[in-house]
Amino acid sequence: MSAIQTNVEAASASYAASFTKGHLALPPAKKYLVLTCMDARIDPAQAFGIELGDAHVIRNAGASAVDALRSVVISQQLLGTTEVVLVKHTGCGMLTFKNEDAYQVVGKQLGQAALDELTEKKLDFLPFPELEKAVVEDVEFLRASKLVAESVVISGWVYEVETGKTRRVV
Amino acid sequence: MSAIQTNVEAASASYAASFTKGHLALPPAKKYLVLTCMDARIDPAQAFGIELGDAHVIRNAGASAVDALRSVVISQQLLGTTEVVLVKHTGCGMLTFKNEDAYQVVGKQLGQAALDELTEKKLDFLPFPELEKAVVEDVEFLRASKLVAESVVISGWVYEVETGKTRRVV
Repeated sequence: MSAIQTNVEAASASYAASFTKGHLALPPAKKYLVLTCMDARIDPAQAFGIELGDAHVIRNAGASAVDALRSVVISQQLLGTTEVVLVKHTGCGMLTFKNEDAYQVVGKQLGQAALDELTEKKLDFLPFPELEKAVVEDVEFLRASKLVAESVVISGWVYEVETGKTRRVV
Repeated sequence: MSAIQTNVEAASASYAASFTKGHLALPPAKKYLVLTCMDARIDPAQAFGIELGDAHVIRNAGASAVDALRSVVISQQLLGTTEVVLVKHTGCGMLTFKNEDAYQVVGKQLGQAALDELTEKKLDFLPFPELEKAVVEDVEFLRASKLVAESVVISGWVYEVETGKTRRVV
């Protein structure tokens, strides 16, 4: 076992020993979803005040709404959520490169077969050059999608990794 | 403001007031990523023992490795992670439907325009009928991808929403 796997087992034993939430239902109790970045510096439960069982939490590189659409539709259409809290953050890695840079890095590090797989899958890494603009655009993307009901409440925020604060953008 | 938005602001003010982690670097300190489900009953930081700054956390409906590939490649190729901890869970919503069921629900609830958007995007909701088999298949998907280096350590787990335990599958 790797040190990380050992850590998962130890943390799990400790967590399960005092676990009292086995009764929670599948659909989120407060009927909302949080969409944020995979960034290691974000703890959504603590930073955004999410109690266990209350909300779906979707995380991907950059808190991309385009990338999250499958999960958003399942959350809303099959599990009844009616509100979206979308949070991007300062210092995001997605602000630092373009698709062509990422393709170059992959080719250099993993070789031609990897580059061929990227090209075949037409993988868009979905980077963005401006943080607040990207928040607005992702909220607009969800509002414009026919797959999101017009009644869904959507807000867009920025989490500051330097201060721990979350401020509303839209 | 909605009650949920008010809650985000209040939680954020409280969190920021005692925040001491503004110095953390962008790349995950322990060089790993956790891929798990968006399910409201999972708190990855607590259940899997993730300290702030240590790991990327990717979450989507069903902890799908196929859906997460973009984020996994960014995590590994641009931000240096070298290990994947993939965790699906008991009672997952993805065990309860098939693509055609989801398409029917969307058509019924959102109408023909939504169904057209689904069809145009060829959206695969990626449900799975068997939990442990799906863990194995997703680990195999990552191992087979040319976009994941052969040296990356990958393990697959099941989190039990009834007990709070996480057990290794592969």
